Amino acid sequence: MLKRYLPILTWLPHYNHRLCGADLLAGTIVTVMVIPQSLAYAILAGLPAVVGLYASILPLLAYTLLGTSRTLAVGPVAIIALMTGAALAGVAPPGSPAYLQAALVLSLLSGAMLAIMGLLRMGFFANFLSHPVIGGFLSASGLLIATSQLSHLLGIDAGGYDALTLLASLARHLSELHGPTLTVGIGTLAFLVGVRHLGRATLSRLGLPKGLSGLLTRAGPVFAVIATALISWWLGLAERGVAVVGSVPAGLPPLTLPRFEASLWRELLVPALLISVVGFVESISMAQMLAAKRRERISPNQELIGLGGANLAAAFSAGMPVTGGLSRTVINYESGARTPMAGLFAAIGIGLVTLALTPLLYHLPVATLAATITVAILTLVDIPLIRQTWRYSRSDFSAMAVTMLLTLVEGVEAGIISGVLLSIMLFLYRTSRPHSALVGRIPGTEHFRSVVRHDTETVSHLALLRIDESLYFANARYLEDTLYALVASRPELEHVVLICSAVNLIDASALESLDAINARLKDSRVTLHLAEVKGPVMDQLKKSDFLDALAGRVFLSTYSAWTELRRPTQ
Amino acid sequence: MLKRYLPILTWLPHYNHRLCGADLLAGTIVTVMVIPQSLAYAILAGLPAVVGLYASILPLLAYTLLGTSRTLAVGPVAIIALMTGAALAGVAPPGSPAYLQAALVLSLLSGAMLAIMGLLRMGFFANFLSHPVIGGFLSASGLLIATSQLSHLLGIDAGGYDALTLLASLARHLSELHGPTLTVGIGTLAFLVGVRHLGRATLSRLGLPKGLSGLLTRAGPVFAVIATALISWWLGLAERGVAVVGSVPAGLPPLTLPRFEASLWRELLVPALLISVVGFVESISMAQMLAAKRRERISPNQELIGLGGANLAAAFSAGMPVTGGLSRTVINYESGARTPMAGLFAAIGIGLVTLALTPLLYHLPVATLAATITVAILTLVDIPLIRQTWRYSRSDFSAMAVTMLLTLVEGVEAGIISGVLLSIMLFLYRTSRPHSALVGRIPGTEHFRSVVRHDTETVSHLALLRIDESLYFANARYLEDTLYALVASRPELEHVVLICSAVNLIDASALESLDAINARLKDSRVTLHLAEVKGPVMDQLKKSDFLDALAGRVFLSTYSAWTELRRPTQ
Repeated sequence: MLKRYLPILTWLPHYNHRLCGADLLAGTIVTVMVIPQSLAYAILAGLPAVVGLYASILPLLAYTLLGTSRTLAVGPVAIIALMTGAALAGVAPPGSPAYLQAALVLSLLSGAMLAIMGLLRMGFFANFLSHPVIGGFLSASGLLIATSQLSHLLGIDAGGYDALTLLASLARHLSELHGPTLTVGIGTLAFLVGVRHLGRATLSRLGLPKGLSGLLTRAGPVFAVIATALISWWLGLAERGVAVVGSVPAGLPPLTLPRFEASLWRELLVPALLISVVGFVESISMAQMLAAKRRERISPNQELIGLGGANLAAAFSAGMPVTGGLSRTVINYESGARTPMAGLFAAIGIGLVTLALTPLLYHLPVATLAATITVAILTLVDIPLIRQTWRYSRSDFSAMAVTMLLTLVEGVEAGIISGVLLSIMLFLYRTSRPHSALVGRIPGTEHFRSVVRHDTETVSHLALLRIDESLYFANARYLEDTLYALVASRPELEHVVLICSAVNLIDASALESLDAINARLKDSRVTLHLAEVKGPVMDQLKKSDFLDALAGRVFLSTYSAWTELRRPTQ
Repeated sequence: MLKRYLPILTWLPHYNHRLCGADLLAGTIVTVMVIPQSLAYAILAGLPAVVGLYASILPLLAYTLLGTSRTLAVGPVAIIALMTGAALAGVAPPGSPAYLQAALVLSLLSGAMLAIMGLLRMGFFANFLSHPVIGGFLSASGLLIATSQLSHLLGIDAGGYDALTLLASLARHLSELHGPTLTVGIGTLAFLVGVRHLGRATLSRLGLPKGLSGLLTRAGPVFAVIATALISWWLGLAERGVAVVGSVPAGLPPLTLPRFEASLWRELLVPALLISVVGFVESISMAQMLAAKRRERISPNQELIGLGGANLAAAFSAGMPVTGGLSRTVINYESGARTPMAGLFAAIGIGLVTLALTPLLYHLPVATLAATITVAILTLVDIPLIRQTWRYSRSDFSAMAVTMLLTLVEGVEAGIISGVLLSIMLFLYRTSRPHSALVGRIPGTEHFRSVVRHDTETVSHLALLRIDESLYFANARYLEDTLYALVASRPELEHVVLICSAVNLIDASALESLDAINARLKDSRVTLHLAEVKGPVMDQLKKSDFLDALAGRVFLSTYSAWTELRRPTQ
């Protein structure tokens, strides 16, 4: 019981110095690598850069205690930062103390929701975010985030949380273009793109081992941060008007208590829910992928608790909403992390940096961080996925397209909510008009297939109708229409057999329709039979009076119905 | 084309004096019979009694032109009147000119929505009101309406649109109990209950033919109205404080133009939608039942247009929202109506009454109308249906119970919306955790059934898994979990065959999961196969790369998979 809620107890007893060495190395590498992105994502959310560091200390500790994934690395991530910024902009002016407070409340609400969903074992909620909706949302968010970083790269003062507002604001302020900032921004961008596309191959060609050259390539942002900070200090870019990170308070994160303010909590409720669900989906996908690689198992419900704990920790230590991040997890995994202890080491490392090294960040240009975000985030734009989805299913594609469009035009919340609602509506619409097929016997076999697609044997007084859907309220009336039309079009009909091999459920509405069909067919001197009714469905039908009223029989197989009914009764 | 949108053109050319005679008789009977309920339902909606008459003139004419049901009788009905009252109470004080205006706007919006849904062929929308939700809603509304009539029966001044408010208001004003009103109310109630329960049998025993005694029994309210109006006039009950209908303006309905006022329209949008859908469901159910009896066909989409036209007519002739009514349709049908012309005759009849006979209604006690409503409405409370649903399915029952509870406590809108949402959510939840069964061969046949329920033949290196649900985003992850657990629990497994006879859809999310399952099973040296994939599903799979990546094969039948794979490969 205790082990279920504190997964650390399952692995800590077997912990040894070999594992510790691997984790210590991974933790150190992660510390160095995630500092630039932690700062960048805090700025993306409209928060002071140091909040990104704070959110990478205690939350990691909480996840180490509570999480089931061995290699997931928790912290601020781009999507969540964007959603945080959009949510907070609605309740307080950026930079104000109220804005900081609201970030804590958002972390608290999101953490509490995740933990409660985990305790209530409601991990299945996340399943309602379909892959096309997630894919569309991530692609659109990638574009949105990249657009939002343009102002930092160009050194102009523009803002907004949807693409149209952002572009309009950029266009309005384009004359304020700031040369030195632009130089730093575009220079860093070019460097990072170069490293990403050519780095690994070039380093391998220089004879470096594959693992190391991969890691050095990933360290591109670290080099960029160090180099531009030095250049900025050396040339005094801050005095020339280039925006820099500036003075970051040194010291461990202060303990904070999110303020209770009913109206604020109410306003942040929906954003917190969306942040929780999106964060959980991003995190669990990654955790499952890596667990599969190492044949480990993760528990979705305990993951909810782990992420909930991490967000609660963020709320009480001046942080911001966090989740398992794509890039930091990959770094952790590839640096050889073996247990969640690596996360603890990273937390200690970032704690030490926060304690002593923040003055070194003073001269770091904000444009460098913007370039880092832009390069990282554009990988989210997944054109092949969009093309595949279009090819595979227009219905899935339309959910994806609406999600993308609304994310760009109306913002992240509208995008994801409409995507989810639309995919549910499309599914319901589809099941409300079920496919059905008249089937016939494939000669010489006991097998029955559609008369349209296969050469089959049929007789005119007997209709074998396979219904390809569960029968429930949304399609009960459609079933009636289908059967009445069938009977009306074939006056020689004596028997109708409903083949229920694809019927997984008959609800009370459908039962009433079946009752009506049975009575009406009896009036037209046609007998209704059922075949291949599944065990669970049959159990339920036995609870009603339908089987007594049924004019015909319930056959175990279509073949036995065929054998019994193929000869006309007259 | 013209015939499709003007169904009158299909039957008018064949109209003859025999049909005309039958329709004229039915129209006359309906005129007499529906006057009390038309007055009563207007009062139920908080409107002047005469509005009920106005709403029974032009709307009938519109339906005669546009409707496809031969015997449906349109006019104010109890549920719609209750919903109208609840909607209007939110926007204007009862009795005010604004309240009357709002009733017109509500009719207009509801009529426009119905007509548009009809033109867009969106009749299937109504299917999302499941039978248990409708049943629960009608039962709870019956109780609610009966409670709302108590104040008129007791002669006290109480109001509200949910059960708690009503009862609290009644309790507060109980001391104002008015003796004479109570006498009229309870007396009429007793008379009507007596007629309903004993009338037909007694009259038959007196030797009257069955049809006539049925009709006389239904005429109970007409006798009650005439008798109490006479008594009230004779004893001067109005001067003794008994509420009477009072002076009703004589003359045909004035032409009215619903005012355009954006905020009012916005507020009435949701109520109008609910009124449209509920009214349509009540009307279409009745129309389909009667059409089935006479082997006629009705067109749901044209019915939407017909009811839309009726409501638009109400909006422009000082009326209120209308639909096909249960009791008036039964009277029309049993009086021998043959075509919609009967509706036209009833419209003319009610027009004549409105023109000349309204002074006769002056002394009619409101308590009589309340008793009429109460007796009619309590038949909606369907205890056997509630019991049956409980027995058949707890899931359907819970949707019904929530609908009933919220209708009583929070009002009709909250009740119906939560019922619909809950039934959709329960369906989605159910499909998100699909039933699956390991199947084996029934010895000596080509038939495969669940190993748990039947004696079957199986081999240990081959798992035949039947998935009893379409594969889509909500259950994609669940499918992965099921398969990984299966493979983990049976180390000797070499082949897994997914039997897709119940899979009616594989969406993009499920496809991604199948891809992942295929790859992961391959890693564990287990081969994934499919069997019994339906034509439409196979067509779609061919649009993706999945079939190329699939490690195993796609078998036409489970039997052929069994034949090929039953021998272990080692």
